[in-house]
Amino acid sequence: MDSADLLVRTLGECRISSPLGGLVTRRGTTEHYVDETDRVLLDDTLALLAGRTGEPPSFEPGGPRRQIFFDPSKIRVGIVTCGGLCPGLNDVIRGLVLELNSHYGVRRIVGFRNGYRGLVARHGHDVVELTPFVVDHINEHGGTILGTSRGNQDPAEIVDCLDQLGVNILFVIGGDGSMRGAQRIAEEVSLRDRRIAVVGVPKTIDNDIPFIGHSFGFQTAFGKATESIRAAHTEATAQPGGIGLVQLMGRHSGFIACYAALANNDADYVLIPEVPADVEAFLPHLRRRVRERGHALVVVAEGAGQDYLAADGTDASGNKRLGDFGVYLRRRILDDFAAAGEEANLKYIDPSYVIRSVPANPYDSVYCLRLAQAAVHAAMAGRTEMVVGTWRNRFVHVPIPLAVATRNQVDPNGDLWMSVLEATGQPAEFTELPHRAAA
Amino acid sequence: MDSADLLVRTLGECRISSPLGGLVTRRGTTEHYVDETDRVLLDDTLALLAGRTGEPPSFEPGGPRRQIFFDPSKIRVGIVTCGGLCPGLNDVIRGLVLELNSHYGVRRIVGFRNGYRGLVARHGHDVVELTPFVVDHINEHGGTILGTSRGNQDPAEIVDCLDQLGVNILFVIGGDGSMRGAQRIAEEVSLRDRRIAVVGVPKTIDNDIPFIGHSFGFQTAFGKATESIRAAHTEATAQPGGIGLVQLMGRHSGFIACYAALANNDADYVLIPEVPADVEAFLPHLRRRVRERGHALVVVAEGAGQDYLAADGTDASGNKRLGDFGVYLRRRILDDFAAAGEEANLKYIDPSYVIRSVPANPYDSVYCLRLAQAAVHAAMAGRTEMVVGTWRNRFVHVPIPLAVATRNQVDPNGDLWMSVLEATGQPAEFTELPHRAAA
Amino acid sequence: MDSADLLVRTLGECRISSPLGGLVTRRGTTEHYVDETDRVLLDDTLALLAGRTGEPPSFEPGGPRRQIFFDPSKIRVGIVTCGGLCPGLNDVIRGLVLELNSHYGVRRIVGFRNGYRGLVARHGHDVVELTPFVVDHINEHGGTILGTSRGNQDPAEIVDCLDQLGVNILFVIGGDGSMRGAQRIAEEVSLRDRRIAVVGVPKTIDNDIPFIGHSFGFQTAFGKATESIRAAHTEATAQPGGIGLVQLMGRHSGFIACYAALANNDADYVLIPEVPADVEAFLPHLRRRVRERGHALVVVAEGAGQDYLAADGTDASGNKRLGDFGVYLRRRILDDFAAAGEEANLKYIDPSYVIRSVPANPYDSVYCLRLAQAAVHAAMAGRTEMVVGTWRNRFVHVPIPLAVATRNQVDPNGDLWMSVLEATGQPAEFTELPHRAAA
Amino acid sequence: MDSADLLVRTLGECRISSPLGGLVTRRGTTEHYVDETDRVLLDDTLALLAGRTGEPPSFEPGGPRRQIFFDPSKIRVGIVTCGGLCPGLNDVIRGLVLELNSHYGVRRIVGFRNGYRGLVARHGHDVVELTPFVVDHINEHGGTILGTSRGNQDPAEIVDCLDQLGVNILFVIGGDGSMRGAQRIAEEVSLRDRRIAVVGVPKTIDNDIPFIGHSFGFQTAFGKATESIRAAHTEATAQPGGIGLVQLMGRHSGFIACYAALANNDADYVLIPEVPADVEAFLPHLRRRVRERGHALVVVAEGAGQDYLAADGTDASGNKRLGDFGVYLRRRILDDFAAAGEEANLKYIDPSYVIRSVPANPYDSVYCLRLAQAAVHAAMAGRTEMVVGTWRNRFVHVPIPLAVATRNQVDPNGDLWMSVLEATGQPAEFTELPHRAAA
Repeated sequence: MDSADLLVRTLGECRISSPLGGLVTRRGTTEHYVDETDRVLLDDTLALLAGRTGEPPSFEPGGPRRQIFFDPSKIRVGIVTCGGLCPGLNDVIRGLVLELNSHYGVRRIVGFRNGYRGLVARHGHDVVELTPFVVDHINEHGGTILGTSRGNQDPAEIVDCLDQLGVNILFVIGGDGSMRGAQRIAEEVSLRDRRIAVVGVPKTIDNDIPFIGHSFGFQTAFGKATESIRAAHTEATAQPGGIGLVQLMGRHSGFIACYAALANNDADYVLIPEVPADVEAFLPHLRRRVRERGHALVVVAEGAGQDYLAADGTDASGNKRLGDFGVYLRRRILDDFAAAGEEANLKYIDPSYVIRSVPANPYDSVYCLRLAQAAVHAAMAGRTEMVVGTWRNRFVHVPIPLAVATRNQVDPNGDLWMSVLEATGQPAEFTELPHRAAA
Repeated sequence: MDSADLLVRTLGECRISSPLGGLVTRRGTTEHYVDETDRVLLDDTLALLAGRTGEPPSFEPGGPRRQIFFDPSKIRVGIVTCGGLCPGLNDVIRGLVLELNSHYGVRRIVGFRNGYRGLVARHGHDVVELTPFVVDHINEHGGTILGTSRGNQDPAEIVDCLDQLGVNILFVIGGDGSMRGAQRIAEEVSLRDRRIAVVGVPKTIDNDIPFIGHSFGFQTAFGKATESIRAAHTEATAQPGGIGLVQLMGRHSGFIACYAALANNDADYVLIPEVPADVEAFLPHLRRRVRERGHALVVVAEGAGQDYLAADGTDASGNKRLGDFGVYLRRRILDDFAAAGEEANLKYIDPSYVIRSVPANPYDSVYCLRLAQAAVHAAMAGRTEMVVGTWRNRFVHVPIPLAVATRNQVDPNGDLWMSVLEATGQPAEFTELPHRAAA
Repeated sequence: MDSADLLVRTLGECRISSPLGGLVTRRGTTEHYVDETDRVLLDDTLALLAGRTGEPPSFEPGGPRRQIFFDPSKIRVGIVTCGGLCPGLNDVIRGLVLELNSHYGVRRIVGFRNGYRGLVARHGHDVVELTPFVVDHINEHGGTILGTSRGNQDPAEIVDCLDQLGVNILFVIGGDGSMRGAQRIAEEVSLRDRRIAVVGVPKTIDNDIPFIGHSFGFQTAFGKATESIRAAHTEATAQPGGIGLVQLMGRHSGFIACYAALANNDADYVLIPEVPADVEAFLPHLRRRVRERGHALVVVAEGAGQDYLAADGTDASGNKRLGDFGVYLRRRILDDFAAAGEEANLKYIDPSYVIRSVPANPYDSVYCLRLAQAAVHAAMAGRTEMVVGTWRNRFVHVPIPLAVATRNQVDPNGDLWMSVLEATGQPAEFTELPHRAAA
Repeated sequence: MDSADLLVRTLGECRISSPLGGLVTRRGTTEHYVDETDRVLLDDTLALLAGRTGEPPSFEPGGPRRQIFFDPSKIRVGIVTCGGLCPGLNDVIRGLVLELNSHYGVRRIVGFRNGYRGLVARHGHDVVELTPFVVDHINEHGGTILGTSRGNQDPAEIVDCLDQLGVNILFVIGGDGSMRGAQRIAEEVSLRDRRIAVVGVPKTIDNDIPFIGHSFGFQTAFGKATESIRAAHTEATAQPGGIGLVQLMGRHSGFIACYAALANNDADYVLIPEVPADVEAFLPHLRRRVRERGHALVVVAEGAGQDYLAADGTDASGNKRLGDFGVYLRRRILDDFAAAGEEANLKYIDPSYVIRSVPANPYDSVYCLRLAQAAVHAAMAGRTEMVVGTWRNRFVHVPIPLAVATRNQVDPNGDLWMSVLEATGQPAEFTELPHRAAA
């Protein structure tokens, strides 16, 4: 099923568009409101438009509505952050609080501690009152002031908690697993016929959530990763037989590796999960490159070359736990150079968590704020079971099922990967492209 | 005339699409080429699509072509940078050289010194041979290794120079004035029936060139500007009666002021050229804010409030030379507080050139590289009289007349300005929106 | 009177060395205590040592004492920040709180708001309870969480306030004026025979407080200033006739200008208050430099060339209010080039408050923490009327009268200025050295 | 033998003070020269001064001499960088070239490639002509433009090379091993009775070279390391059972770990080579800390806890090759928490080479420039077999044998370690201090 079909079917099934109605008419100082009939097209290629009957697939745009559902003076709002850290979490929290408080006049906002655990009574976490004073300056820090944890909790217990606290809107900032959890919470809310909106702000350091343009914190993360690439390049070029090997985050998607490599434009090789690597072809090519130029720079995503790890017994347990390709490759390179009697000064750098725990850069700060504004507008207008994203430079509402249906990956036939191939000059011999394999 | 009409008319008149033909068939290692019939729609709103007959207005997408016009082993390429500095100039130069050299195998690339002056014999500037070695590391520096200057030169003298040097492709990196110059060069080339492609990479620190998505270096520039806003906020909050006043670049467009203010989300007021400011209404509001909160933060674009400068006699010379609104406003604020007998500790900060002379941040570095790749693909495929840009996340070819036809500005009724109004909470009383004035 | 005489006489007159006695014997986990007889020599040149009778002048070293005066479980401590901002203020506050709380077990610590105003009842500022939780993260921010203000207040009112709150130790973080205020407070305390220790941590962005080695925040400040110099250099080298002119803080001392210029090592001229400038000799030299090299870079401290400002009528008011030399010089340079008919593209940059409101860099953070530790040790051991500093790489106790007796300035015959002259190559013709003038 | 004896004996034996004589009298524009009889005392404690007969041990101060040995217009100078990378290498190279060229007028300067290998003919490395143009901007990059390598080469072959090229001064920038190599080169020069000065600029990322105050690049390195500590702290505080574990460079000296930990002042434990760690006592303490506060932060130098690695069989080979203590400790912590049934979310970060391959920060840039100036002054004045350093804030000449005689380490009874103990609050139970063990 292609993206358009997926979108059409999902939109037909979900509760996103104003299920709670619009009860309150706003009288603001501004006359700028989103028209309820406005739409953002999924795809604008002429072919697609020509071949379809009926309206083309589209998203509901984000932004303020004239009719809102919740009375700001009455409601209580909850915020929770889940999963691994990502630059911008505190910007989103601050943006939600300031938009709710200053723009809508909502005074009662609470934060749940340590992810979904904070919404389950038996874990015993206190909630945090969130005021403009409390969130002042937090955007200058990495991490999340609410704490986080991995894993979902029983939706029934969570809705019990929301009931008990009288929460009318729950904002969930988290990854695809957390969004599935949010979906189940919304379903439990619906079963109980409660009027609680569940709105997500999707978080992924790997930029692998589909239908949301790009994810917040991604620019910050790959920007920080470029420091490791620069360091490895500096080391490699300074010594005879210098080889820089950098491993970056990216279990299933190589976006960080691709963008970070392009930023410096010094990498000779980029290996990502989406394009199978042929290590046996890579090694002699690397040796030749080092002989000819005196040095080489290799950037790998942690999820690349997983076949080798399995074949090598490194991770033969059958489960989907990934091994570090970088560590494997380091050993293979050193062995290969040693066997060939050639000098190798290999410097291995893995910045690991440093790229995800930094504060957001200014671009991501703006983006987080605007995502938060869009999320508040959506929730206040009664939207639920949705996440906010951008599509073709507009903020949109994306149904949760759509946001978790697939995984955004680097297209081996797309513009980004072509830019990488042109920039590195790495040959196709040791990266077997899917469409070639099919031939 | 709206954008769509402008695009349709301009495309009908210009030489952009393969006027030089496609003579060489490439046999690359990759099979990824752009289909000659592919298009990127200008607008994808349903209303626009419904209301038009014929094909909707669209751009030609960027990217490699299977048929190219120039034989890489034979040609000579020239590069020139014009106008004020902008983060990323060296990234673009480096990207052009590496793409030409490593990907296409072009060996003869020259750089002209100090803008168009370098293309005019009587200025006596030597040309610079540009090799991968020469451009190594230059992306880590601000400015341009080629030097720059303002103003255009006689197109005839320039084409004489190109003829003499045997230059087949000229890349111009510059602003709207320089693009008009490039247009005239291309016209002179056409008059003489030469086969010289003129391709631009549009540069503007203010993000005010239309039809190119956003301009390279813009993120770096507003990111750097946030430091001044943070400093002013820190100063303002540390002292009784603290007022931070920051003036940022932006003669006709307030993008830098808007984005930089949103990034910190601490500004109480943002004043931009696009939205007339009522200083008489602003001053008492500012005093009230300082009384109530103890401090305030004001961000102005240099081109805001120009009516006041003229009325005030500061710039009564009749010509379009803009005065500094920030300096004017500083005096007005201090006078106003003094007259009211209220304490004012005003700190004025103008980062001026610091935000434009820094190296590109990683995002802009990637963007510059990919713009350079697209520019090289376009030129090698024989396109001319065009600039590269992005539209709806795809790289596109934009005819020069289109890129200089209007000015990109912050839409007072658009999403960005609404985000600013929501974030600052500044009232409409002292910013008179055009559509309200019309009522 | 030279430094040694000043030190000997001042030490003989002041209350610094344990006037409050040592009542409590500590039983710590560590056996590292400073010996009460240990001293740090003021000067170690052989000549000085040889020429003196009696003990050579020396400072009391900082550090923990076995005998302390105050019982940590009983006392209350106050902290106040005064004067202009400086990188590291929050580090010092945090360091004081953590050292008092975690190391000594002092639980009652209050912060006074907005400088000495916060110690005077009629200004109506509440005090802030300072706990480890409150000071968490504050070191990552510029400014001071306590706020600040300029000017001293009536010592009697201040000691009334200390009495009323039961404060036993007052830490003052401020400049020379604030230290004079601290001195008067200590004298009032002594008159009333109270047992209140007054200990200062000297703050000056200009590094101009004598006898304290260097001041905290100075490295951060000049480091930030280098960005403006780099920007000006980038601008100047990019354009024909390019002149970069940077004005930096430094009303009476040129340390920031000297260090920032040395860091980039691109400046052609550095003009500081300590070395009178001959603008008439400077201008033709500058024009020659621009003609020969195509560009030039000038760094000035704001307090340089004040004679010209007076002579020029810019600041003829007789009082000591300084004018901006940079603005004056900009006009002179432009006029001079215009008169000579030579092209000048002058870019003027003044980073102003940006260099002082940033967070401390890691070095200054360490230094601030260790100054705070030394200040706490001193106060707990009953020292008063003193500030902490470093001398020959050891932390020392400096009597307040000594710290405010003179001003630390760049020695025109010293190593630093010689480094600047060698690095810039600027001739002595237009900087008239004092010892030459005397000849 | 204590430091003073070592200094006295070494000075008596070495060739440092003007062995080549002073033949040329300079007529500069400045009258600032170092007096040949000036000295900088090694130690200024009263006790030491009192207890000695004769002149107290002292260094020769650095700086320009009126009488110099080499005629700038005649000589050729060589520069070589050896050993691992360190921030500031390019600043030193640039400083040497600019000081030689602009201040003394030396025109013939060559750089040797890839360390001492570049001085041995059979390795076949070309030399690089070093001009002001070549070294422009290099200070903005990490690494060394000359390349480097480890290990010494045959002194006879090296002096053959110097002879052949007519090199009169050789500047060696390298670590203690490279300085021993420089010593042997100087001895060979002396044997052959050549007039070649060999002057070193000592380089060590670990700050472990004695008698030179502190080493260039150290502040940059520990400053960069603080980012990893901040990241680990952010991760640890964001999750239940959060433990941040950071391993930093420092095989024999814990300076980087100590300073980086103090800069953030968030570490709960700092483990360094100089203070033996008792892991069995540490683990239960860590578990208690995590239980009580919810998180903990541990900083280790790579060379800490080597006894455990040996005992553990990790590095039982008998040679002095160190294992990674961080990796060992990670496993021990995870096992310990698992055995205790307590939740541990451990994040391990090792920035490795990133902290040493970055460009120098502004402070280090100034320091490198001034070291380079001092080295040039020394060499031009005919000094040899020496390195430049600072002692009590003055630049000094240190005989090579002294600089390689011992290793600078964190004193377990000194101020720095006491600051760390006070800041972390870590108990003495699991760090057994030498002087306590002796009791």
